[in-house]
Amino acid sequence: MTDQNAHLPTVLAHAEANLDASLGRLFDLVRIPSISTDPAYKADCLRCAEWLAADLAGTGFDASVRLTTGHPMVVAHDQSGEGPHVLFYGHYDVQPVDPLNLWNSDPFEPVLAPQPNGDTHIVARGASDDKGALFTFLEACRAWKDVTGKLPIRVSVLLEGEEESGSPSLPAFMETAAEELKADVVLVCDTDMWDDATPAITTMLRGIVKEEFWVRCADRDLHSGIYGNAARNPIQIVADIIASLRRPDGGVALEGFYDGVKDLPPQLAERWLKEPFDEQKFLGDIGLSIPAGERDRTVLEQVWSRPSFDVSGISGGYAGEGFKAVIPAEANAKLSFRLVEGQDPDKVQQAFRAHVRARIPADCSVEFANHGSSSATVMPVDSPLLRKALDALKDEWGRSAIAGTGGSIPIATVFQERLGMDSLLVGFARFDNRIHSPNEKYDLSSFRKGIRSWIRILAAFAA
Amino acid sequence: MTDQNAHLPTVLAHAEANLDASLGRLFDLVRIPSISTDPAYKADCLRCAEWLAADLAGTGFDASVRLTTGHPMVVAHDQSGEGPHVLFYGHYDVQPVDPLNLWNSDPFEPVLAPQPNGDTHIVARGASDDKGALFTFLEACRAWKDVTGKLPIRVSVLLEGEEESGSPSLPAFMETAAEELKADVVLVCDTDMWDDATPAITTMLRGIVKEEFWVRCADRDLHSGIYGNAARNPIQIVADIIASLRRPDGGVALEGFYDGVKDLPPQLAERWLKEPFDEQKFLGDIGLSIPAGERDRTVLEQVWSRPSFDVSGISGGYAGEGFKAVIPAEANAKLSFRLVEGQDPDKVQQAFRAHVRARIPADCSVEFANHGSSSATVMPVDSPLLRKALDALKDEWGRSAIAGTGGSIPIATVFQERLGMDSLLVGFARFDNRIHSPNEKYDLSSFRKGIRSWIRILAAFAA
Repeated sequence: MTDQNAHLPTVLAHAEANLDASLGRLFDLVRIPSISTDPAYKADCLRCAEWLAADLAGTGFDASVRLTTGHPMVVAHDQSGEGPHVLFYGHYDVQPVDPLNLWNSDPFEPVLAPQPNGDTHIVARGASDDKGALFTFLEACRAWKDVTGKLPIRVSVLLEGEEESGSPSLPAFMETAAEELKADVVLVCDTDMWDDATPAITTMLRGIVKEEFWVRCADRDLHSGIYGNAARNPIQIVADIIASLRRPDGGVALEGFYDGVKDLPPQLAERWLKEPFDEQKFLGDIGLSIPAGERDRTVLEQVWSRPSFDVSGISGGYAGEGFKAVIPAEANAKLSFRLVEGQDPDKVQQAFRAHVRARIPADCSVEFANHGSSSATVMPVDSPLLRKALDALKDEWGRSAIAGTGGSIPIATVFQERLGMDSLLVGFARFDNRIHSPNEKYDLSSFRKGIRSWIRILAAFAA
Repeated sequence: MTDQNAHLPTVLAHAEANLDASLGRLFDLVRIPSISTDPAYKADCLRCAEWLAADLAGTGFDASVRLTTGHPMVVAHDQSGEGPHVLFYGHYDVQPVDPLNLWNSDPFEPVLAPQPNGDTHIVARGASDDKGALFTFLEACRAWKDVTGKLPIRVSVLLEGEEESGSPSLPAFMETAAEELKADVVLVCDTDMWDDATPAITTMLRGIVKEEFWVRCADRDLHSGIYGNAARNPIQIVADIIASLRRPDGGVALEGFYDGVKDLPPQLAERWLKEPFDEQKFLGDIGLSIPAGERDRTVLEQVWSRPSFDVSGISGGYAGEGFKAVIPAEANAKLSFRLVEGQDPDKVQQAFRAHVRARIPADCSVEFANHGSSSATVMPVDSPLLRKALDALKDEWGRSAIAGTGGSIPIATVFQERLGMDSLLVGFARFDNRIHSPNEKYDLSSFRKGIRSWIRILAAFAA
């Protein structure tokens, strides 16, 4: 096993020398517009899965594309190593790109953009979330195989194409492929660093309930002069509902929402207070300065360990240029609740729908759609593999941290609930990567040091 | 002058015999997509003005197209008659047609749609508002000229192309053409009937303040997982503002909004109570049953004599299929206040903007645009011309009524303020004409009896 540590410098040097080729492969992957939520890109999602399976096969994996009722899975195995068996999980699907006019370059034609501070950004949809991130692991494997002909440990890979649209096919696939997917731990690369210089292993993930609803009133659009006052306006109803969900103190005004929500465990609270976190920089980076949300909580506490509510889309009536004096027949909103440990997604969904229904006049109607739900996940912070990974990260970066995340990675919950496997969420993404936004980017240094970090982690796990 | 009454049966019979040709001309007019609010249709608006000027010239009017900084005016005069001088006002521009998928036929390819109850609908954008309506007057003039070679009285015509977008060019044009436009009364055909069997002369018009605002928070769209709770959501702010504008009792919660608003004059209140008005039919026709708005007012009072507030459009965030977990950088709403006598549009606009500004967090911003404002108008209900017109309508329909309207016809205010002329608003439109909505229609009977009504009114004014 010291064998692996002996090879480490050579493997790192090989990855370094071949960085341009790694980047070229990433660019090819990013050029495939694999938007899972939009049916127009279904063929691109399949093409993306096929590209990845071919790439993995090229590195010596036994790789295949597995069709589902939605977008396909990519599954690959390499048994050339010994000792622990890890399952690496990533997703090859990406978010939609609108509003397209806010992009400075084609979202699916990646560019390297040098920055005034000396950084270089890889700019493209998926550059960070999750193609750039998952590719750091694939390139680390390639470097080990190129130099030693094998991997330090046993590695399986599962790449899905529906993460951005709620992973509808994943639970059933997991049941079917349970034996094949079983490993000692799941490795996930889809989270943020602690700060720009410190990679992080995330042990707390928020859950989510994603809901959409439509309020319908009159059976047609009405002239607001003829019917104004007398006819119910669905935009008013939707606005009243959204307003009613927010408490004056910034909390979420949903019946029973905070039931079961606990304060931070002392061990983590202490760690988080000791680590420096700059609220003003966190908000200043996005052009804001005043924290929203719950008044008596810190920003870090709010985004990592408190449940939240946000509207992600609203529409109704005339949206074109100029003005149209209309009372629309229908209005709509898309919203999500982020959940923490102790909250039940089904109960939150039921409380939300009851809250809405209670506010719909008897002559109007409401329709709901769910876009995915998952519970929050809390990982153990003292497992041997986590300690090895933290040390390996520290060897590469000089430091490493245990973090929470405001985001929801339902896959971690699903692995825990369905296959009894814990996940190790290792992240190299920066807060300002604009994932889900125009001009998404991944720092070239995240990509380079991400590859090097995985090379080290694979060696550490073998030791 | 009894001369005119002698001709009346012949002129009515002539119009009746030529109804198909009248309808053919209306169809040609309606086929021109003269959407004034959308710059893409600028050339169509000019073409529409040219078509109308040519049509008027064909009837013997001295007609011309007058260019403005916006869409052109059509002005025409016929001095062949004697006695009173009327100025007929109409507008040839129409509302946008979206959502296009809700139309059962091409909005600009008019169709005659027979109904189960024996009615026939002319279905097209502008079939009612205002091309169908203004054309009843033009065809009445044509019938008089065809039969007698002249008109019973002196007639001028002013047709504008910006009514649906706030008439920005009209005030300046009125100053310039003041001498030319001066007449004893303005005739307007852009209002509703009292009910399906009773034409109405509208003497109360609501004013309007049309506003749009944009709230901007972060400098980009954000991932709701990373920033949820901590970053301000502009959709929440816009929703809170809209909710805050509505009082629990259904009234408008704007500082000073009801200052100066008076109860109905007893003369009108008595008339309106005597006339039958079926609230359940009014709401039932559009698929509703419960009146919205102020709880202690009747529906008729609310839509004709009480000020109102409505949101006509809202947008923000992801509006596509599926879900995108985003906190948008910006959200937007378009809304209007309908005003009654005693309310000052400028004060309402200022109060609204102050109301909004007070609700924008210090690190966010708001921008406003005004899409037009006008005061309410109240006409005298006992002028000799109004009495003659009411009698002429009764001769044609068997009954007639004096009405209010919830709509805003700023032109009436402008004529009163700029040229000191009262307007007579004679309407043949039904409440269910779906103006500003998909499948706008005008009843063939409104068109036919509208032409006949104007033939009678012209004769009555000469008597």
